[in-house]
Amino acid sequence: MRTPHSESVLSRTVRIIEAFSPDEPALTVSEIARRSGLHVATASGLVGELVAHGLLGRDTDRKVRLGVRLWELVTRASPTLSLRDTALPFMDGVHDVVGHHVQLGVLDGGEVLFLERLSAPGSVVNYTRVAGRLPLHVSSSGLVLLAHSSPDIKERALAAPLTVYTSDTPATPARLRSLLADVRLRGFAYCPGFVHEEALGIAAPVRATKGEVIAALSVIVPNDATGRAVVPVVRTAARGLSRALGG
Amino acid sequence: MRTPHSESVLSRTVRIIEAFSPDEPALTVSEIARRSGLHVATASGLVGELVAHGLLGRDTDRKVRLGVRLWELVTRASPTLSLRDTALPFMDGVHDVVGHHVQLGVLDGGEVLFLERLSAPGSVVNYTRVAGRLPLHVSSSGLVLLAHSSPDIKERALAAPLTVYTSDTPATPARLRSLLADVRLRGFAYCPGFVHEEALGIAAPVRATKGEVIAALSVIVPNDATGRAVVPVVRTAARGLSRALGG
Repeated sequence: MRTPHSESVLSRTVRIIEAFSPDEPALTVSEIARRSGLHVATASGLVGELVAHGLLGRDTDRKVRLGVRLWELVTRASPTLSLRDTALPFMDGVHDVVGHHVQLGVLDGGEVLFLERLSAPGSVVNYTRVAGRLPLHVSSSGLVLLAHSSPDIKERALAAPLTVYTSDTPATPARLRSLLADVRLRGFAYCPGFVHEEALGIAAPVRATKGEVIAALSVIVPNDATGRAVVPVVRTAARGLSRALGG
Repeated sequence: MRTPHSESVLSRTVRIIEAFSPDEPALTVSEIARRSGLHVATASGLVGELVAHGLLGRDTDRKVRLGVRLWELVTRASPTLSLRDTALPFMDGVHDVVGHHVQLGVLDGGEVLFLERLSAPGSVVNYTRVAGRLPLHVSSSGLVLLAHSSPDIKERALAAPLTVYTSDTPATPARLRSLLADVRLRGFAYCPGFVHEEALGIAAPVRATKGEVIAALSVIVPNDATGRAVVPVVRTAARGLSRALGG
């Protein structure tokens, strides 16, 4: 069914698309070649193809970007759009009251993938962004998702090396296990300084029709005494969103 | 530089991705084959490849969707993300005050492409959605973008057949020309009932560093006497956004 040639065109195309990042959304053809490990001539030919299909676009300065047509095709039938659209009014409500950052994350490939983020200017430090990722054990969203994940995902997370971001990041399987039990018991994750000393993450589970946890709604606020008051806001919004999803 | 074979794999891949739509984001392989005009065996093989790369994903019911990995790759380096992120707080502000629908649109391929939409439950009828399109002459965003576009885009729009949605849709080049002059003079587009009798669209230009119009900020509200009061809200937000973009 698969010919080696077609496999390689697709693989190369994926490598080219992977070359673009949030910090460098515009690249020259030689930068694309270097990052994707392709010969310049190969990259140049394939970039030409992709531009012709609107999947890539050329800037006036000859730099190449992902194409608006690619964004459109992927967004209009996005696998995450309906969850994100249902979540947005609830996220908006939290953002109006709490400010700082409000986020929606899902479990993907053993990490949290953030589908949406609302932020206010002057908010506390936050490493996440839309379509960005974080390890499960450091982020409040990740702990919520991990606490409600299958046993094999849990075992894999507990067996993996735990990257330490701050002195408060859970660094041992025993601490992680106790945090997960705590999340299940209390119905939310409370993570002061896990990712950054100055930031407090609070997350609650979002459930779909059968009660299964499909996402985490979270806020990132300053890591001080005012954080506790935010917990019921996040939990209420996550429950409202779950009801709107039929959960 | 281009080989016919690689061209055809990419073309087929684009046809497969185009088969998915907002109304049908999950398809069987035979539906994909039918919509993309490919043989089932060809579609099946290519779908297998795309699933292996994470560009498509399989549901539990064997239906195929766009893959979360594809969404992630395209969104994190999206050509529209920074505009959309800068616009969101301004859109939020308008949405808090006006309710209904607030939208951000850009000119693409002779149409308005909507990058973002905020909506409230129970709002007035609205045909647009995120990554959706409308013809330039029917939508307030389209008229703003067209009024500030190059002479050749204007001439093309004035020469094309003008699809009529309601008895208020501009249906002649003369009416369209006078509307465009009006938009430039007054600094906003006011479109009562152009797309639907019950809806009023109001749009204002968003400018970048050199003063060039790069987007339109718009609201869709009920088509009644209260609409006039919304004009300064939209104009103020569009100017604030332009300043934030350095325009």
